[in-house]
Amino acid sequence: MLTVYSEKQLLHHPPKEMVIGRFIDYRETPSRAETIIKAIRDRNVGDVVAPVDRGLAPILAVHTEKYVSYFQTAYEKWIEIGGNPDGVFPDTFAVRLSQIYQDISDGGAGGRPGFFSYDMTAIIAKDTYTAAYEAAQVATTGAEILASEKRRAVFALCRPPGHHSSEDLAGGYCFFNNAGIAAEHLIKHHGFGNVVILDIDYHHGNGTQAIFYKRRNPMYASIHGDPDYPYFWGRAEETGEGEGKGANVNVPLPIGTGDDEYLAALDALIANHIVPYGIQALVVSLGVDTFGGDPVGSFNLTSACFERIGERLARIGVPTLFVMEGGYAVSEIGTNVTNVLLAFERAAGSQ
Amino acid sequence: MLTVYSEKQLLHHPPKEMVIGRFIDYRETPSRAETIIKAIRDRNVGDVVAPVDRGLAPILAVHTEKYVSYFQTAYEKWIEIGGNPDGVFPDTFAVRLSQIYQDISDGGAGGRPGFFSYDMTAIIAKDTYTAAYEAAQVATTGAEILASEKRRAVFALCRPPGHHSSEDLAGGYCFFNNAGIAAEHLIKHHGFGNVVILDIDYHHGNGTQAIFYKRRNPMYASIHGDPDYPYFWGRAEETGEGEGKGANVNVPLPIGTGDDEYLAALDALIANHIVPYGIQALVVSLGVDTFGGDPVGSFNLTSACFERIGERLARIGVPTLFVMEGGYAVSEIGTNVTNVLLAFERAAGSQ
Repeated sequence: MLTVYSEKQLLHHPPKEMVIGRFIDYRETPSRAETIIKAIRDRNVGDVVAPVDRGLAPILAVHTEKYVSYFQTAYEKWIEIGGNPDGVFPDTFAVRLSQIYQDISDGGAGGRPGFFSYDMTAIIAKDTYTAAYEAAQVATTGAEILASEKRRAVFALCRPPGHHSSEDLAGGYCFFNNAGIAAEHLIKHHGFGNVVILDIDYHHGNGTQAIFYKRRNPMYASIHGDPDYPYFWGRAEETGEGEGKGANVNVPLPIGTGDDEYLAALDALIANHIVPYGIQALVVSLGVDTFGGDPVGSFNLTSACFERIGERLARIGVPTLFVMEGGYAVSEIGTNVTNVLLAFERAAGSQ
Repeated sequence: MLTVYSEKQLLHHPPKEMVIGRFIDYRETPSRAETIIKAIRDRNVGDVVAPVDRGLAPILAVHTEKYVSYFQTAYEKWIEIGGNPDGVFPDTFAVRLSQIYQDISDGGAGGRPGFFSYDMTAIIAKDTYTAAYEAAQVATTGAEILASEKRRAVFALCRPPGHHSSEDLAGGYCFFNNAGIAAEHLIKHHGFGNVVILDIDYHHGNGTQAIFYKRRNPMYASIHGDPDYPYFWGRAEETGEGEGKGANVNVPLPIGTGDDEYLAALDALIANHIVPYGIQALVVSLGVDTFGGDPVGSFNLTSACFERIGERLARIGVPTLFVMEGGYAVSEIGTNVTNVLLAFERAAGSQ
């Protein structure tokens, strides 16, 4: 399987995030991507290519201009107002009541980043924009190669991840919604009618859900831990709105879910929703924080289970783009990701 | 002028708040209220009485049951999940997309306080609920005495302040909306038809605005610094909705506003909005962070200007309840607050 990757994605490295009232070491580290690319090479998953830079167009197909332009200068303006050089920590959030934006450098202290964020983990440090921009290019390039070269599957090794980011909100280590950007590229540039974004990260992809909530294409389907981050989104009752009604499928599973329950839920999701939808292309939001040893997730999947997942995804039988999301057990992340990809290749080859 | 006050309000004392990415010493300190009560006594403003405890009823007239019940146990549950003992710092906020609540002790880390908060300054420490509950009783007792004893004016020395707190959101050092609770008491228990909450705190009272945005009674009128905290609310264009259309008046003034511009704006607000409304009772959200030396506000009012403000409020000529809000220049706060109250008394006495 071809991998798309760029080392520019490693530039994003805020030292700290905030969890339950304390600064802790940032868990979405560059070493995550480095470990994965090493495993890709060590296990001969396939060639690795650099992304083609398509500019802002693919990003603006999913995100608002206001959000992108905020993000481009947020760190610089934050430093100007005397903000913590570790990165932009929002302290006042535009919760529910307001749609009014104030620029970060308009008077007073720096609460304004809270207009474009909903948490204390998507920290914008000096080179965050560069890395997130690059991740969006990796995703777009992956989608482009998948479609134009009519490949069976491509792996877009994106970092930072994307699925918590909506059209104008950062959160959960995510800034640009790489999977959403890739799906939109498949739909707009290659005419796919029934794309499914299947999100197998441990966490609900509230950003992806929000972006496509009122659309039939793509479908968003997610299996995730509940109750857990992002807390306020991800219930089974969230099924889409308007034209999108029925094209949003959430499968919340309890803390501690193991291989058997997980695979049963995945089988049911594929059989009852993804196949009947008439799927033509699959974008997998590939998180491996469902692994038992993950410090951020609370499922109990084994490394072997990731092979079973890869086989099932292959059997769906459509062009498939893997887009990297979470996974924080760094010592196992390479094995777990390549387990999915290699098992997919074996199963697809034997079809 | 009679003052209502309770020392239980001093129990709320979180050590830290978060501003532009750093923990700083909490600025809404117990010494604020201690300095004001000392000035009340030193300058012979009048008798000081304790509040009557009316239970949760006055609070639930303004806040949701869910919010109050969250607040009652938030600190305890926070400690159970290993949260920073300094207080509840939300780290994930229910921004714009969600109305789904998860209890603070449901699995994972502690992002859930973000459902009921929009910033990093309304920190719930061990005794915060007790103090906020007491402040609501101080406000209610002030309203009750004003109406039942047909007094000209009463001062409810509340702490923590209230005007940033909406029916189910804490923020800006505020937990229960004392001024809103008092206004509602005047309306529901004493039949006042046209109550005005005049908010002269430096900051826009987004909580009060939100609570009454769709109601004609009370009117909410505010003069405040802009652009500044709470950033996302307080524009002149926010004029109320439905029955409340026209009964929400925001007067944003620029950073650096001095005595003359301020008094001109106050005169215009009274003449053009408050008098024509047919005001029957006045609740003043009394912040003195408009003072030039205030570390949180950015206006330039002199201590003498607070006397001019008191005179103007007296000339409105209706029963008036002062409810304490902000003011962070502790060494001057006693002088500035009593300047308003004593000048009001003198002007009212000479009418």
